[in-house]
Amino acid sequence: MPNPTAAILIIGDEILTGRTREGNAYFLAGELVKVGIDLRQIRVISDDHETIRDAVRELSANHDHLITSGGIGPTHDDITADAVAAAFDAPLDIRDDARAILGAHYAARNTEFTPARLRMARIPEGARLIDNPVSGAPGFSLENCHVMAGVPNIFQAMVAGLLPRLTGGKPLQSRNWQMMVAEASIADALRALAEAHPLASFGSYPFVQDGHYGTNLVVRSTDRAALEAGFAALQTTFPEGK
Amino acid sequence: MPNPTAAILIIGDEILTGRTREGNAYFLAGELVKVGIDLRQIRVISDDHETIRDAVRELSANHDHLITSGGIGPTHDDITADAVAAAFDAPLDIRDDARAILGAHYAARNTEFTPARLRMARIPEGARLIDNPVSGAPGFSLENCHVMAGVPNIFQAMVAGLLPRLTGGKPLQSRNWQMMVAEASIADALRALAEAHPLASFGSYPFVQDGHYGTNLVVRSTDRAALEAGFAALQTTFPEGK
Repeated sequence: MPNPTAAILIIGDEILTGRTREGNAYFLAGELVKVGIDLRQIRVISDDHETIRDAVRELSANHDHLITSGGIGPTHDDITADAVAAAFDAPLDIRDDARAILGAHYAARNTEFTPARLRMARIPEGARLIDNPVSGAPGFSLENCHVMAGVPNIFQAMVAGLLPRLTGGKPLQSRNWQMMVAEASIADALRALAEAHPLASFGSYPFVQDGHYGTNLVVRSTDRAALEAGFAALQTTFPEGK
Repeated sequence: MPNPTAAILIIGDEILTGRTREGNAYFLAGELVKVGIDLRQIRVISDDHETIRDAVRELSANHDHLITSGGIGPTHDDITADAVAAAFDAPLDIRDDARAILGAHYAARNTEFTPARLRMARIPEGARLIDNPVSGAPGFSLENCHVMAGVPNIFQAMVAGLLPRLTGGKPLQSRNWQMMVAEASIADALRALAEAHPLASFGSYPFVQDGHYGTNLVVRSTDRAALEAGFAALQTTFPEGK
């Protein structure tokens, strides 16, 4: 049987104007090779409703999977969800499941759940949510179109949750532990944790916030007990996280 | 009047399989912004004749300019020229002007002009050649489709020659001086040359050959006398070049 095929659609004027060097497609191309999905096309387009809608229709019709990156944040120019819903003629509104995920995420961080953030709970009817262990706001799969954030460390964390679904593997579950320290300073302790918990995987996603280095540590496992054991060990090892 | 529009078509399985991180589109996106051409799409596709032909037809029909990168080298899988010729129903054969350029390039370097290298003189009928000051083998413009090499330092050198043509500027002429030294070791002397010859520009394109660092120095000017004066000074400053 031939491998399933895929296309990647990158949405963002910042790429087309040369301000940002695109890296998500490069990362995902490497991941798709590992799981036996043939990447046939990468396309970068601008933040325009009809352009996105038409590209989603064309690429989802001609490939087994279409993965999009970008345009699902809280601001007015984040129009990917609307355009993808339009491509499949699906209604789009705030969904209770997505609102609950965002609400829990912000509550755990003492962060206000503003109307702009509520915008990220707008998910097309019939879509399946994609876990975002880093920043909470879920992506979604509508038919064969998988809609992901554009921020590289969030994109990479979401890909880890999506890929098992595309290849028929057991779904990965995840928990996130955020720390305001540089990634390098915890690398040794994290490696020891990973060795002590072979049924779980430990990913680290560095970021910079208000001029300070931080790292999101994400534990993943297809086994709920292994996930919770790994997460408990993570909390014990790094009590300064949250 | 609105800006002219452009699309970039990157041809290469090495990008789609995640082996190589694409950088030519990023470079060209930044250059197009500077000259007022609106980049509307970047597309990466595989080394497949029909895929290239169909993408060239679609993107050249929907944009003022289409720039391609990759697939014009000497090997059997370099099929871009064939596919672009097919897209515009143009005959393709070895052209005398391209053969003369390649012949002079190899003669100056005591390099054999092999049948594989002669393959790079295959240029569609009616196409205008694009100067390649680094490695000799010309690109070409057929209608509004501009076909360039994929090797980054060659691509960048060819872009410098192409852009004035797209924007109605005076055509740039160029001469190349190749040296087997690292770029950093000649940076100061090159800056002094550039300051002494304000009507010419001096570009440097580093490469590695057989494990040794080398640099192609390219002098460009729209003024023939300024070009020759700059090139003579380059030869005097760096007599070890060729």
